[in-house]
Amino acid sequence: MQVLPGIPDIAPGDDLAALLLESIERAALSLQDGDILVIAHKVVSKAEGRITRLADVVPGEKARQLGLELNKDPRKVEVILGESSRVVRAIKRPGQLEGTLIAEHRLGFICANAAVDESNVGAEETVILLPEDPDRSAREICALLERASGVRLGVVITDTFGRPWRMGLVNVAVGLAKVPSQIDLVGERDAFGRELSVTVPALADELAAASGLLMSKDGKTPAILFRGIDWTPDNSSARDLVRPQQEDLFR
Amino acid sequence: MQVLPGIPDIAPGDDLAALLLESIERAALSLQDGDILVIAHKVVSKAEGRITRLADVVPGEKARQLGLELNKDPRKVEVILGESSRVVRAIKRPGQLEGTLIAEHRLGFICANAAVDESNVGAEETVILLPEDPDRSAREICALLERASGVRLGVVITDTFGRPWRMGLVNVAVGLAKVPSQIDLVGERDAFGRELSVTVPALADELAAASGLLMSKDGKTPAILFRGIDWTPDNSSARDLVRPQQEDLFR
Repeated sequence: MQVLPGIPDIAPGDDLAALLLESIERAALSLQDGDILVIAHKVVSKAEGRITRLADVVPGEKARQLGLELNKDPRKVEVILGESSRVVRAIKRPGQLEGTLIAEHRLGFICANAAVDESNVGAEETVILLPEDPDRSAREICALLERASGVRLGVVITDTFGRPWRMGLVNVAVGLAKVPSQIDLVGERDAFGRELSVTVPALADELAAASGLLMSKDGKTPAILFRGIDWTPDNSSARDLVRPQQEDLFR
Repeated sequence: MQVLPGIPDIAPGDDLAALLLESIERAALSLQDGDILVIAHKVVSKAEGRITRLADVVPGEKARQLGLELNKDPRKVEVILGESSRVVRAIKRPGQLEGTLIAEHRLGFICANAAVDESNVGAEETVILLPEDPDRSAREICALLERASGVRLGVVITDTFGRPWRMGLVNVAVGLAKVPSQIDLVGERDAFGRELSVTVPALADELAAASGLLMSKDGKTPAILFRGIDWTPDNSSARDLVRPQQEDLFR
């Protein structure tokens, strides 16, 4: 697990894969078969121009109403609603300056403000959205890196989410290239020969959470290289990590 | 991040700290200032004798009733209820052989079957409970390892939990010695000088989830050594990771 150093601030149109390769070279690393790159979505979103200037947003009636309820810029609310398929909860606690929309993102993820983010944008009056299709973004980056390096790789794109029932934030996978969302151990046996029937580790989320140990929160280390992970490529999508509502015992 | 090799099957009364030290020596490692050991609770629970023989359990009325509903051994249900402060949900899906109790564990964690586990016990008719006080267990192990090594360490004890809204299992922290549950970045600044107001990474859960990348699910690699993590010791408890119900925007 290693930081890729010296990734510069990313602007729309930047060639992120090329910048990652430069960083790998600068670190005197070379990509190896089975390496997995875990990348914070923000740099992917920025490279893809998924930045919205609030000055360009005209809030609708619902956004204006929620903005009033939550003491939240209605233009920001409008962007959040545009990224959401459903508002799960809108809440502003006493003493909180600005409330939060818990929303189901159009890709299925349930998270604060539909993953629309203000921090690290550079200019004040802009917000960053998730990539349009984070799996596609991951696959494009993965393909470019594989072509340049000649080895087989995996890519995970992450965002930082809050969680029901547990405090604090962890990184989760929002886009996958080749990396399994989960490892299905059904039929394998534990140390005593008992069949493991329900042990399905969420590999992609384990990688995402682990990357948080090395991604500094100031945004300057958005890419982490994992080597030596035991995995087999598949066609997972980060959407496979979304628990279907009818299966959700925990709700 | 490195597996501690050759941890044997643990039995009640075993000196787990001594076995960890032997493993570290065998791996030709030496503990260094700031190292963090992440340990699966099962070996801690076993060493502490937190194993219940189902033959010794007499199920009460509630356990018998839930056992019928869930097609679950009422003695197992009795043990789960004994570890729970509240049943959140009891469910058996069509086609499922045995149902699940989502319970609030007496320590506050919300998880399947109050963290009572059957796998990897060795004998068939036993279940493993969480340590009585996993923070205390972590602190005891940490103190023994610090005394033996002369360096400052941290210990995280983990269990494997399912999650609302997301598929698959991840390891989470259930016991902490010195390792912060969360890192409070309030007041720090991001790459653009903007104040980070709500970025509170759940460090202990990041470590726990990362350990899942190297803990084989057959139970034979229950301890992972982390080196090079940026952390400052504090007096966190794993209970600090339990989100108070009134704060839980996500419910």
